This record gives sequence, C-alpha cells and structure tokens, in this order.
Amino acid sequence: MTEAAYPIYGEINGPIIMIGFGSIGRGTLPLIERHFTFDRTKLVVIDPREDIADDLAEKGIRHIRTHLTKDNYKDVMTPLVEGGKGGFCVNLSVDASSVDLMKLCRKHDVLYIDTVVEPWPGFYFDDKADNSARTNYRLRQTMLKAKEKHPGGTTAISTCGANPGMVSWFVKQALVNLASDMGVEIEEPRTGDREGWAKLMQTLGVKGVHVAERDTQRAREPKPFGTFWNTWSVEGFIAEGLQPAELGWGSHETWKPKNARKHKKGSKAAIYLEQPGADTRVRTWCPTHGAQYGLLVTHNEAISIADYFTVRDEDDKVAFRPTCHYAYHPCNDAVLSLYEMFGNGGQAQAVQHVLTEDELVDGADELGVLLYGHEKNAYWYGSRLTLEQARKLAPNQNATGLQVSSAVLAGMVWALENPDVGIVEADEMDYRRCLEIQKPYLGPVEGHYTDWTPLDGRPGFFPDDIDKDDPWQFRNILVR
Amino acid sequence: MTEAAYPIYGEINGPIIMIGFGSIGRGTLPLIERHFTFDRTKLVVIDPREDIADDLAEKGIRHIRTHLTKDNYKDVMTPLVEGGKGGFCVNLSVDASSVDLMKLCRKHDVLYIDTVVEPWPGFYFDDKADNSARTNYRLRQTMLKAKEKHPGGTTAISTCGANPGMVSWFVKQALVNLASDMGVEIEEPRTGDREGWAKLMQTLGVKGVHVAERDTQRAREPKPFGTFWNTWSVEGFIAEGLQPAELGWGSHETWKPKNARKHKKGSKAAIYLEQPGADTRVRTWCPTHGAQYGLLVTHNEAISIADYFTVRDEDDKVAFRPTCHYAYHPCNDAVLSLYEMFGNGGQAQAVQHVLTEDELVDGADELGVLLYGHEKNAYWYGSRLTLEQARKLAPNQNATGLQVSSAVLAGMVWALENPDVGIVEADEMDYRRCLEIQKPYLGPVEGHYTDWTPLDGRPGFFPDDIDKDDPWQFRNILVR
Repeated sequence: MTEAAYPIYGEINGPIIMIGFGSIGRGTLPLIERHFTFDRTKLVVIDPREDIADDLAEKGIRHIRTHLTKDNYKDVMTPLVEGGKGGFCVNLSVDASSVDLMKLCRKHDVLYIDTVVEPWPGFYFDDKADNSARTNYRLRQTMLKAKEKHPGGTTAISTCGANPGMVSWFVKQALVNLASDMGVEIEEPRTGDREGWAKLMQTLGVKGVHVAERDTQRAREPKPFGTFWNTWSVEGFIAEGLQPAELGWGSHETWKPKNARKHKKGSKAAIYLEQPGADTRVRTWCPTHGAQYGLLVTHNEAISIADYFTVRDEDDKVAFRPTCHYAYHPCNDAVLSLYEMFGNGGQAQAVQHVLTEDELVDGADELGVLLYGHEKNAYWYGSRLTLEQARKLAPNQNATGLQVSSAVLAGMVWALENPDVGIVEADEMDYRRCLEIQKPYLGPVEGHYTDWTPLDGRPGFFPDDIDKDDPWQFRNILVR
Repeated sequence: MTEAAYPIYGEINGPIIMIGFGSIGRGTLPLIERHFTFDRTKLVVIDPREDIADDLAEKGIRHIRTHLTKDNYKDVMTPLVEGGKGGFCVNLSVDASSVDLMKLCRKHDVLYIDTVVEPWPGFYFDDKADNSARTNYRLRQTMLKAKEKHPGGTTAISTCGANPGMVSWFVKQALVNLASDMGVEIEEPRTGDREGWAKLMQTLGVKGVHVAERDTQRAREPKPFGTFWNTWSVEGFIAEGLQPAELGWGSHETWKPKNARKHKKGSKAAIYLEQPGADTRVRTWCPTHGAQYGLLVTHNEAISIADYFTVRDEDDKVAFRPTCHYAYHPCNDAVLSLYEMFGNGGQAQAVQHVLTEDELVDGADELGVLLYGHEKNAYWYGSRLTLEQARKLAPNQNATGLQVSSAVLAGMVWALENPDVGIVEADEMDYRRCLEIQKPYLGPVEGHYTDWTPLDGRPGFFPDDIDKDDPWQFRNILVR
C-alpha cells in the first residue's frame, strides 16, 4: 500500500477518545489517522504519562493528563461522551475497568473497543482474594453479565487485540481450510451461527487449540540486569503472568493437574491452575523454530474460544468442547526477564521497558492458532510478521504491536459497519471482513501442518507421566 | 603482576601431556608456560580438533590429532608416559576415562590432574542404563575404588577445576572466616584432619553449602536461534545438565522430593533426583544480583564436600552432614540455550559455541560457596572475577575459563610440591597454599553475609509447600 492507496473504511462522526497511550496506543493512532475520516479537534488522549505530552502537543492532539480511576472516570469521561453519538472510545489502557467504561459509552451511544477485560486497580495483586477471584474467567463474567443485562444496543467490542481478538478469526479460517484439506464438504456457518461453528470443529475432530506464539524479535543490545524488557506492555505482561494459569477445558481430557480448580458459576468452560501462568510451561509448536516451550499465560481467548465452540446435547450437557490456551514464547529478553523476576521471589524489576522497533535488530512475531488432535495431526494458521515488514507497514511499532493495533483497526471498522449489535467478543464477529481489513498489516498469513506431537522424544532418560494412547492430552502438553 | 614478576612455581622434569585443547586447555597452556620451567620439546597436546592444528604448529607444539578411546589410549599414551617420571598429564578433555588415564599415569610415575571424573563415551547418554548408573556419585565411586585399591603413590588430583576444585578450598576459608566473625575460638584443623574440619562445620551450625554461581558475562551480539552458547564447554554442560540432579544430603533435612533416590553402595553421602539437573531450579543467592534461580546441575563437589564434612558417631552413624549442591545461574545466553533445547524435547542444538573473551562485552563470573543455616544466616565466599580483569590477567580466556585454568595451575603446583600422596580430591589438599597460588587470577575474593533466605516473599499468591520453621530445608530451596 502506498500512502495514497490506503483505503478509508469509514467516518467517525463524533469524538475519538483514546484511553491509554502506551506502545499499543501509539501504534494505533497512525492507523486511525490513515483509515478513517474524522474531526481532528474531537480527538482526545487520556493518559497520565508525562513523556508523551510534548509529542501530542506537537501533533495538536488534546491530552487529558490523568489516570482514570473508579472515582474520577465519570467526571472525566461524561463531558467527552455526552452527545457523542457516532464517536468511538478506544480503550488501550491498564488499570481502568473495561466494563464500567463500556457501560458509560453505550449509555451515550459511543462505540467502544478494548483489548482486555481490564479491572480497576487491585484486582491482579489482591493477596486477600482467593485465586479464583483473580482469574480472567471471573473478569469475563463481569462483561458477560453486562451483556446479559443490556442485550443489543450500541456496539462495544470486548478484547479485540491480536490475542485475544484476531486469533479467534484465525480459528474460523483454520477450520475452513482444514475442512477443505481434509476433503470434508461443508456449508460454512454464518457469522451468527455459533452452534454451526462449534459443530464444524467437532466434526473435524479438533481436540484443542493452542494460541501458539513465538516472538523472535531480538534487541541490538544485551539486556541489562535488573530490568524487564518486552516487546509490548511490561506492566500488562507481568499482571497477566502472575494471574493463575487458565485454560478452556476440553471434553476429551482424561487427566487434570492436582492444582486444577473449577469455577462454580457461568459456562464453566475453563479451569485454572494454582500457579502463575508465566511460570507454567507447555509444549507447543510454531512454524519457524518448531517445537518450543510456551507459557500458559491466562488470556480471554482461552475461555471465549472454548465457550464459543462448545456443543451441547439435548440435555444441555457438554457433548464437545476444545481445550484452548495460550502457549506463548515471548521474545528472548522477556524470557530472561521472567527468569530474573521469578529468581528474585517473583518481585518485578524496578526498571521496565518496551523495546521499540529501533532497539530491535531483527526477528518476527509468529502468532497463530494450532488446531490439534484431528486426523491430520496439527495445523498452525497465523501471522508471521517480521520486524522489517512491520517497520515498512506502519510507524511507531514493532511486529508485536502491529498485530495488536491492526486488530483494533479491524474491530473499529467492523463496529462502524455494525453499530448496534451490543457487546460482542471477537468470536462473534465476521472473521472474513475483519481479516480482510487486517491482513495487509500481518505479513504472510499462512497455514502449516506438522507431524510434531507433545510426545516427541519422550520418555527420555527420566520417568515421565505420559498418555501414550492420546498424544494430545493436556497431561502430555503440560511440562511438569 | 607484570610479565617479569610471574613467579616460577617449579620445574616439570618430564613430558607435559595435555589431553584436550578446548576452551580450558587453551587457557591453561599460557599459565603453564608462565609459571613452570619445562622442556618445550616434551610438551604434547592430544586433541582431534582440526581447527587448533595451525595454532599449535605455529607455537611449535607437538600435536597428536586423535580422540583417545578405550581401545587406543594405551597405544597413544604409553610411549608418552613411559620413563616420564616427573612429567605431568593435564587432562582437560571430554569422553576419555579419567580413572583409566590416572591409573596409566600413576603406573609410570607421571603426575596427573583433571577437572571432572570423566567416563568413556556412552555413559552420559546410555538410555539402557538406569539413572543411578548415570550419576556422578557412581563416577566418583570408580575413582574412590582406584584410590582404595592403590593407596599412596604418585599424586593424581581428581576434579580440580573451579568447581569441582577451587570451591572446596573456599569452603575451608569460609569456615575459618565464619568462626572468626562469630567469635568462636578454634584451632584450625590441619590439611589431613578431615574429621577436624567436619567437626568445625558442625560446631559452627552450618546446615548446608550451595556452590552459588552467577555468570553475568554478556555477549555483544544476540544469540542466533538453534545454537547453544555458553562461556565454557557446551558439550560438557549439556552432558552434566542431562545427568540426574545430585546433591549431598544433609543430616538436617526432614523432607525429600518424591523422585529422590538413594545409593546402595559407598558413603551414601548423596542422593539424586529423577530429573535432569539443567531443568532443576533452586533458590540461591550471590552478592551482585542477590536472590536468583540456580540450576541444580550435578557436580563432583556436591558429593565430595558432603562426604568430607560428615561427622560420624561412635557407632559409625552419621551425626552430621551438610547438604551440598551446585546452584548455577549460567550466562544469559546459556539460560536461553537451555530453554530452547528443553523446548525442543531436550534435543541439543546442532551449532554449539563457546563465547570467547572477544565476543563477550562485559560481566563477571561470580563463583563462591554459600554456607547457610548458621546463626549469622548465610555467608557467601568466593571469586568475583570480571571479564575485564580476566582479559588483563591472562590470555585466551573469559572469566569462567580463568577460574578453572588457575585452579588447574594451583593443583599442579601443589602436586609438584606433594608428588607422592596418591589420588586426592581438592578437599584433601592444602587450601591455603592452593588459594595463595590461585588468588592473583580470581579478581576480588570476598565474603558477604546476607539476610536472604529461600522463604523470602513466600508464600505469594499461590499455595506453597514450605517449612516455615526452618528456612534452610531443601524443601524450601527446591523450586517445584
């Protein structure tokens, strides 16, 4: 795409309120500027950071330098959203309640999007709460409750970044590709046909889905000690990494870890483990480097995908559900940062830094979905976006950032085109339209089959509690 | 020390046979040249590597380009050691049996030193052997058997590198310092008084010893994928890293991991775990960066120190024994290499590389002993040698290498001064003399007390099986 050729996807007829202007916010703004027409005087950024003030001032963008809190958010937000019908709230912040902001926006007919069901401060590190209360399952329930209470109305898209978000669209594309490659004739379910999609996954024999990611972006300089380096929000990664590991729990599983816990309310599509996700390793696979350890960090998509693809029988009992979880190999500097942090009793480093595209020398973010357990073993489908490509495609971001910001763009376009469908998750959106918008920013989007299973090379020298009969049991996937 | 000021410690009146010319061999040769007088025409290097041939030829050093095997070692070695009384065999190789070479040398009155009880090939990766047969305990037994069978005679020093080796001297110095700092008046045991040393440790209330190492040397370039980078032999590190984790088992321990196994023969000073040491994390502490994860990689000193410092009662029952194990934080590139290797089903990378002092940009190898559990909590004593210092002190090696090669130097001097004490380990040598020789190469050698315990910050958010009453139980130290 040349600058002239960038398609304008629509007009935002009202305020654009960007909450949070960290690495993702800074990457999303140029895409908004590029692909929408809007009144620039109605654009406002809410973020307490001092170091962004000059930049925004230079750009002539209004900057409200505050941290939204439970106490001030109505006062700060109401003047912005009042009479703001046709406007858009793009929430890319941490520590501000997604559900509260969503409610406020919908009340004033302002479209809304975020990339995580974020709570007010205190949730992630509440050492008085039991771990069940610190799960994403519980956070998602707050969103589902708002949806149930006020169905329909102004569109608000929940958790629509790369993952959660884009990967839900990949799952559907992967299923369609898999059916075709298997020679299974299907009629593709419509967007709204949740049951049809779930039955398709069941029919194809998919047992589970890894959101399998390998970030190979390498920093030019060696990481200094006592610092946490990552390719995206360090604060966000530490917060989710210290939540309990969580996974959608498939109907094929015959074994559970001893520290696995169920939920009492809701869909019960997921379980959690009494251990931090960032210290929970799983065996997974990505195309470039093959077999790898991934971290089972909790993510909304692990729960939403397992929930969405659940098939229930006539008695409303679960007849099929995939296991689903994140399996994340962060960039090497983040692997080292975690090793350092956990080695220091889990206390986060004082210095936290997001590596910019200039500080990185090469690498890619390989982010896709690994559909496993079917007759073709396993199929990875996703984006293999290199740093080099990301630099050419859009300013202010590395490969990881662009996968997120372009998903936000796709979500925004879809919301403008579907402005009154209420609160939705990525699973409920039109995956074709969303990927159509996003793909120009994703580098090669490809499918790859593999013969690899989590039993490869096992048992080795040591006793290993494995299920030889079904390679794709979580018992084999979890590193113990 | 200026070149002129290097002390000559003695004369080697016979052949010098260097077996193995990897990173340690290349670092040791300049020290031999610097500190001994010898007939250069009698110096020979045995090593199959092609890439060292030109260098040795340029230096005018005889090079036997072969890999010693069980079948050829007598043929290759006998002409070299025959009539070689007063000569020295410096074995710094992998895959050649230390005990067989030791025997051959002693038969011909040639002094001998090595840094590991190395077996013939097949031992480390024998998937038909049970894990008990792959332990260092078992390897050490072969050495002890040779010692028992032929006591006295020509000196042969077993496992005398940095660790095993130097750290045994540190333990004694640390005990003496600790006694002084505690105000406990002692008469320092003589070198040969094993029981005296063991009773001193018991008296001071030391429960255990970590060989606590932090390698902070950083490479200039980011590690390429599919490569194993380390600051010393990759082959050696992988071999020991995939052996079972092993530790000297202290008399204060009240809990054992379920996969812990005892030995049936010998001193029974150590146990092993049915898991690879390089994937076994422990909580430990080093001065510069404080609390850290160390890897419980098996090492001879874990067994020899626990054995040496055992106090037995009148019925020959163990009255006191320290827990002892390695707690190794390798350089960051090795941490990443291990993560990559284990993520790939434990299959080692095809490309393996030892980082030279030129490829490293900064950092130190902080290698010491952490004596814990006494009334002053914990005391680290060791070498904090920086890369920069290492470069100035000696050619061809980084900080890690110099800690090893200078220990070999110290061992050689001591052997020349004590040529007929038979087979010995570092614990049995004169620690004062050895450290006197080695210290000029170790950078700052310091003692540091710490308030840190493995219970710091625990329990966190998750249930944690800890012993609150005794912080220094292995139950608290092992990461589970």
